Formats: sequence, C-alpha cells, structure tokens
Amino acid sequence: MGELADKLAGRFLVVDGPDGAGKTTQVALLAEWLAEQGVAVTRVRDPGGTAIGDRIRSILLDSDHGEMSVECETMLYMASRAQLVAEVVRPAMAHGECILSDRYIAATVAYQGAGGMDPAAVQTVAEIAVGGCRPELTIILDLPAEQGLNRLTGDPDRMESKDLHFHQRVREMFLQQARDLPRRFAVVNATGTVEEVQQRIRETILGWTFG
Amino acid sequence: MGELADKLAGRFLVVDGPDGAGKTTQVALLAEWLAEQGVAVTRVRDPGGTAIGDRIRSILLDSDHGEMSVECETMLYMASRAQLVAEVVRPAMAHGECILSDRYIAATVAYQGAGGMDPAAVQTVAEIAVGGCRPELTIILDLPAEQGLNRLTGDPDRMESKDLHFHQRVREMFLQQARDLPRRFAVVNATGTVEEVQQRIRETILGWTFG
Repeated sequence: MGELADKLAGRFLVVDGPDGAGKTTQVALLAEWLAEQGVAVTRVRDPGGTAIGDRIRSILLDSDHGEMSVECETMLYMASRAQLVAEVVRPAMAHGECILSDRYIAATVAYQGAGGMDPAAVQTVAEIAVGGCRPELTIILDLPAEQGLNRLTGDPDRMESKDLHFHQRVREMFLQQARDLPRRFAVVNATGTVEEVQQRIRETILGWTFG
Repeated sequence: MGELADKLAGRFLVVDGPDGAGKTTQVALLAEWLAEQGVAVTRVRDPGGTAIGDRIRSILLDSDHGEMSVECETMLYMASRAQLVAEVVRPAMAHGECILSDRYIAATVAYQGAGGMDPAAVQTVAEIAVGGCRPELTIILDLPAEQGLNRLTGDPDRMESKDLHFHQRVREMFLQQARDLPRRFAVVNATGTVEEVQQRIRETILGWTFG
C-alpha cells in the first residue's frame, strides 16, 4: 500500500476518451480505490474545477457548435485549463498529491482537431496555457464510436452518419496521440462492464513505469 | 468623399492604447465621421461584440487580476476575439465594409505582456485564434501613464506606485509594437482635448497608405 502511495506522490494522471466511454464513473471509482490504497488524491474535472473554470464550462455547454467557432472553443478550453493548473494542479503537486483529472489536453486535440483545428496548433496553445504542466499518464478509454454514441443517445436509430463520422475521427485522434507518445499514454479497452474496465485501469496504473 | 469610402472598403482598423486614453469616445466620434464620409463602417468592441464574447467579457470584468492567472486571461481574450472574427469581422470584410474595433490583439500583447506573458507567445496564440485576420492599421492612443491613471481614478493621490510601474510597462509595450511594425501601427498623441485628438486620428487615416 505504501508503495503505490510513494509511486503516485506528485504525479499527474488523466482519464480521457470519447463521450460515452464511461470516464466520469471510472474516475470516481479510481479516486476511491486510490484513497483506499493510501494515495493522497486531488480529483479535478476539465473544463471546470475552479470558480472561473466553471463559468467558462457553462459557456461551452450552453453554446451549440454551429454558433461557436472551433478556434473560440479551443481557446475557452485552454483558458479553463490554465486557471485549473495555476489554482489547483500546481499547488497540489507541490504538496506531493496525486492529481487525477477527468479529461485534459488530449480531449481538445481530439475533439477540436476533429472539428477542424490543426492538432499541432492545439498543442502549441496548450504549451503556452499550461507550460510544462503535462500529465505523466493519460489513460484513453477506447471503444468503437458506434458504442459510445449508443451509450449517449440510448437510441441507435437516431444516430446520424455525420455524428458517427465525427466520432470516428475523434477516436482516431485520441489513438494517434497514444501512438505518438507511448510513454505518456495508455489505451484501455472500455468495452465490457464497469468493473471490468475499472480493473483494467487499475492494472495499467500498477504496471506503469513513470519516466 | 467617395475616395475615402473606396480607400477604406474592406479594411480593418483598430483604435487601441492604455485605459484612460479616451479610446471609446474617440472610436464613437471616428465611426460617426467615417459614416458621414460615406464609408460603410462596422463598429465592434473587443473583448465582446458577440453573444458569446459578451459572456467571456463579463468573466474578465468580474474577476480580479489576483484570482485569474495571466495565461487564463490571455486565452479568454483570444476566445472572444476568435468568435468576433468568425461571426462579425470576416463576414463584414467579405461584404466590403470597413471594420472599426475598440481594442484588439495589441492590447493583449501590452497588458498580459506587462503581466508576465511573453509577447511572442501572445502573438503565437493570436495567429492560431484569428489566423490572418489582422488589422491593416492599429492606432495607438499614447499618453504618459500618469495622465491615463489620473483620468481613470480622478484622484492622483490614490495612485499606487505599483500601478504606475505596471502602466508604464503597458505603455512601453504598445509603443514597442508600433516600432516593430511601423507599416501596421500609428502612434497618436492622446493628450489635449477630445477634438484635438480626434483631429489627429482623422489626419492619420487620411494620410495612411494601406500596404
């Protein structure tokens, strides 16, 4: 138990992946398990996680994507993230806590990348917004785009092919990031039961060598 | 009269400079004069100018600067600007209108630069946020930092030296941009009466050669 606490002290972990992959449920279970193992965990969500970030999040959630330009979306996600890093992540890491974030930069690269932004440009903005405050491990919950959409809508018949193609691009852009940086990303199969997926996440963390 | 309308068709003009320099008054007078000269003017303010931008503006105005990180501020200004460009500036320019903006990128370079951001990083983010949508002429209303602060507070005794030094850095960062890009920036002396300053702005525009 003490060993995992030592291993994760001051580390920055992210769980990311497409909508419908079960991120929020998995993050909650993971935070609980880590606390049981004696790890001091600070759990955050991105966007949000600060008073300013929650106001930015509400602008993002209120606006439909046709109305808001993809450049504006990208900058708003980065603004919320910059504040989260300054106000929560850096201070907690300085105190040796393990940060566990529900989404982070990988989501903006994937979603706004699928929406038309150059992924390299998104990374450039991220570098300026959060500097070196990058996660040591981003776990991508991966599942076929059809399954994620079904979980979201509960109605496969209403799924439009336009949505499906967009979500296939999002999935591909998450996987591409994992291929590009294999020492910073792990892909976890998000099909199966909640318990099965949680077990895979825990094994990934237990087996991870932090660089 | 037709000559000025032709000269300014599809051009992007900005009036910028420190708080207390009289920007908003001067922009209103300038818009009126341009309309009298037969110029089709779209007047905007930055941040703001769109429904989304006005919500972003209110976050910026509500937060004190101690609470909000300078990186978050920078990203919020760019988010509002990206939306303004997509929703208002590009369509109006495509229709041959002259855009007249109260502030733009130069203000973020100057203020957030004075607040600790690398000015080159701010320019990099601007390039991603608005692409090539750069003003052909940015008029910097320039006056000594003490005078701008006096106009703002109405009370020179309450002026703190910390504020004064910050505003001196802001002024210097506006002037530096004008030195770096003399074909895109004009510095106008903002001391004197409203009418005198307005006259200088009009003469600057009449004498300007668009590149």
